[in-house]
Amino acid sequence: MLSSRRALGRHAPSLSSVRPATIRSQFTFDRKRDFSIAELDAEQKGRERVVVLGSGWGGYTFSRELSPKTHQIVIVSPRPYFVFTPLLAGTSVGTLEFRTALEPVRSFRGRGVGAEYFQGWADDVDFNKKVLTVEEAVEDPSQGRVLSDKGEESKSEKQVQQKKRETFDLPYDKLVVAVGCYTQTFNTKGVKEYAYFLKDVAHARRIRNRLLSCFEIAALPTTSVELRDQILNFVVVGGGPTGIEWSAELHDLIHEDMSRLYPELVKHVKITVYDVAPKVLGMFDEKLSKYAMKTFQRNGISIKTNHHVEELRPGTVANPDSTDAFTCYTLKLKEEGEVGVGMCVWSTGLMMNPFVESALKDRIKQDERSHAVLTNANLQIKGPDDTPIPDVYAIGDCAVLEGTAYPATAQVASQKAGWLAKRFNKGDFERQKGFQYKDLGVMAYIGNRNAILQTGGGKISGFLAWCIWRGVYLTKSMSWRNRILIPIYWSINFVFGRDISRF
Amino acid sequence: MLSSRRALGRHAPSLSSVRPATIRSQFTFDRKRDFSIAELDAEQKGRERVVVLGSGWGGYTFSRELSPKTHQIVIVSPRPYFVFTPLLAGTSVGTLEFRTALEPVRSFRGRGVGAEYFQGWADDVDFNKKVLTVEEAVEDPSQGRVLSDKGEESKSEKQVQQKKRETFDLPYDKLVVAVGCYTQTFNTKGVKEYAYFLKDVAHARRIRNRLLSCFEIAALPTTSVELRDQILNFVVVGGGPTGIEWSAELHDLIHEDMSRLYPELVKHVKITVYDVAPKVLGMFDEKLSKYAMKTFQRNGISIKTNHHVEELRPGTVANPDSTDAFTCYTLKLKEEGEVGVGMCVWSTGLMMNPFVESALKDRIKQDERSHAVLTNANLQIKGPDDTPIPDVYAIGDCAVLEGTAYPATAQVASQKAGWLAKRFNKGDFERQKGFQYKDLGVMAYIGNRNAILQTGGGKISGFLAWCIWRGVYLTKSMSWRNRILIPIYWSINFVFGRDISRF
Repeated sequence: MLSSRRALGRHAPSLSSVRPATIRSQFTFDRKRDFSIAELDAEQKGRERVVVLGSGWGGYTFSRELSPKTHQIVIVSPRPYFVFTPLLAGTSVGTLEFRTALEPVRSFRGRGVGAEYFQGWADDVDFNKKVLTVEEAVEDPSQGRVLSDKGEESKSEKQVQQKKRETFDLPYDKLVVAVGCYTQTFNTKGVKEYAYFLKDVAHARRIRNRLLSCFEIAALPTTSVELRDQILNFVVVGGGPTGIEWSAELHDLIHEDMSRLYPELVKHVKITVYDVAPKVLGMFDEKLSKYAMKTFQRNGISIKTNHHVEELRPGTVANPDSTDAFTCYTLKLKEEGEVGVGMCVWSTGLMMNPFVESALKDRIKQDERSHAVLTNANLQIKGPDDTPIPDVYAIGDCAVLEGTAYPATAQVASQKAGWLAKRFNKGDFERQKGFQYKDLGVMAYIGNRNAILQTGGGKISGFLAWCIWRGVYLTKSMSWRNRILIPIYWSINFVFGRDISRF
Repeated sequence: MLSSRRALGRHAPSLSSVRPATIRSQFTFDRKRDFSIAELDAEQKGRERVVVLGSGWGGYTFSRELSPKTHQIVIVSPRPYFVFTPLLAGTSVGTLEFRTALEPVRSFRGRGVGAEYFQGWADDVDFNKKVLTVEEAVEDPSQGRVLSDKGEESKSEKQVQQKKRETFDLPYDKLVVAVGCYTQTFNTKGVKEYAYFLKDVAHARRIRNRLLSCFEIAALPTTSVELRDQILNFVVVGGGPTGIEWSAELHDLIHEDMSRLYPELVKHVKITVYDVAPKVLGMFDEKLSKYAMKTFQRNGISIKTNHHVEELRPGTVANPDSTDAFTCYTLKLKEEGEVGVGMCVWSTGLMMNPFVESALKDRIKQDERSHAVLTNANLQIKGPDDTPIPDVYAIGDCAVLEGTAYPATAQVASQKAGWLAKRFNKGDFERQKGFQYKDLGVMAYIGNRNAILQTGGGKISGFLAWCIWRGVYLTKSMSWRNRILIPIYWSINFVFGRDISRF
């Protein structure tokens, strides 16, 4: 997935805003090399060049399905790997190793003729000339946590950002926009700076390290009783599947591993999920969500609905001015006042990608509520006057098929990606009725080897649902490498416990 | 392993410099908790308390071998895991996953009664009162790269350091000092700041990310021919086993994986090992080291002996003032002048630990050449007047048995650790003649499924030696978890290639 930093400053880029590369270049070497693009042209061999923006569920799935015999596939994304998001919560507590949820974008080529890849952000696009402007992003400081909000970055990282990166032009025959969304924070004070997100693998690593730190701090003799109790209070904001599954995974870590490693501390641990809505897991039917609530209660996880977060700040409740090296956080709630927490995991929905909001703005038709790119049933992007823009398509969370209310999920993204790739491969848009989403159901892991599962065919809960949950995600994993490693890690961690090394 | 930052400022700490914890505390909470120490006392149950400083080959091996029935084992180390160093070079190129070279110190307890652990630096010790002062280190910014030189840390990290961390007192019955050494840089300009070390797992991760970045940068159309050639030039300084094995692993990564993923770039890659000595791999006999040199030549790795590094700085040779976001480095050699490099891996020997150099100085007898702690044959630390200090022992790279010239290797450290633990368990110091090192031989991996191996029994080189190399390190691995995972990763990476995701 992908975004544009520089585009943020521009609110109405003209169609001709793409300057020639030679003028734009600030690079000091004399012999400028257009090496890769020239090679790309040489390799094209009469095929259509399809440029894919993004390497998430939309972009990566589409690229895998597209035939390289008739298309030259070029992926442009700041993130050189695909993240298998359903397993991310598990990696953040050590149920799985981080890399089992990743697929490197470049490994395509290992399968013979595959995709080309440039690590960069889409900066601008000229729909008339069919040229994309790409900003290089190899040593981008947000590497590994693309798609969280930028406020999360530290000051020194911002200084690096201000250094203008070089751009280059990339002509396309067809363009597929699959840049994804950012995490929504509703501008809640302190959230961008101090919350822990869970959209990319570096987020998962940050969570894992922090979790284990909290226990190590609590075990020190220099830690007061107050700090210990606050630092072992873990909070999730957002009762969607991501937040719920993370709290379930955390419960497992604490009761399966921490209870053995820090027996004197486990009784002080608290897990709470806050949501602003009157209900969590709203996509499940009454019976299943009640079952989930009962399981959470039994597992000691508090679900607090109708709660409003007002602020997140560093420091303990007792001593807000503490400059202690060990940070604890304080969450301020409208209903409860101040609560000291070891960490606050934030997962409250999506914010539109700045590439859509700035670079594409005024040249496309946007959804009023979500600000997503609107497409027709062929997934082609609509211009402001409702006519489709030639050869430009959009899939994934950044796109909405006009007139539908499909959810912004991996399932919709990968179905759109598969459908679009098939049309490209067969060239049969006109013989089709347009994309239609087929809801295969929803699942959520709720802890202690329990899951809930709801499909058109029926509803299941408990251990069997958990087995299906694992089976489905195992078979959906993209590479054989991970399909082998995932069950190995599940078994090894079952036998030996999760690894708690922190580095 | 372990060091003392604060001790660096003090050059002659008095024996009574340990102030009571209540005065030292700067913590603002009222109810001070001596929770863990009180619990520790309650758990002691008549056993001797053995405090072990460090979690490396010396400290970790000793703690594992010591009987918890007769000893309360307390490990104090800033690093919450043991690093299986022979596999570190492999993890830095993706032959193995990082965690397969780690053993968490706390997992002891999983085996029933095991070791207690505090994450901290030894700050001071009172040999008369038998009390250790520990500085807490849970959120230490050098986490994961303990034992590299401090200059490596960034400015913001230094500011965090200046924040005084809390200390606490830990009484001991017996103390085992196994704090290890730092990497020696000979104060070569720029090395602390810009070189890549290979002593801890975060170093390995930093190397892996940088390596893959270099290729991704070289693949961008905005990268000039000059920058491409410099950024694909990889340099190792130090021709010891670590440097040699890393260059061999790098060769494998490039020829087995990068050649497939970046076919147009591989012909521009260069690997060079520089050493100041007239010969590398000096611990091997003539025939084996000649075999190694021939293998390196065939693999395209240049070995340049009698070369002196004068400086390492960021920027390319062509343009030293470049403030480009993509850093290339320039290595200045007495013999060759300036050479542009993508990265410089530094492995040139050991520098004594500051805990020995400052906190213990003047209260112990030091080796003249290495500044190590001198011990008698019972591995007991000698005072300045040559009499052993009661109940204080030293093992590992920070200690030298007076009158011997045993090398500073994992083999010596773990033999000393095993011998000392046995004496503690049996209480039979007086019936023994003192520690004696048994040289089991040396091995080195030299790339392309070749190794060299030299023992008292004979010399082997080539594929068979490589099989033995792998077999030995597999069986020497500490946990069953890793003994299972290591061959799985070897096989998976053989079949599917190394993972090149960078995060």
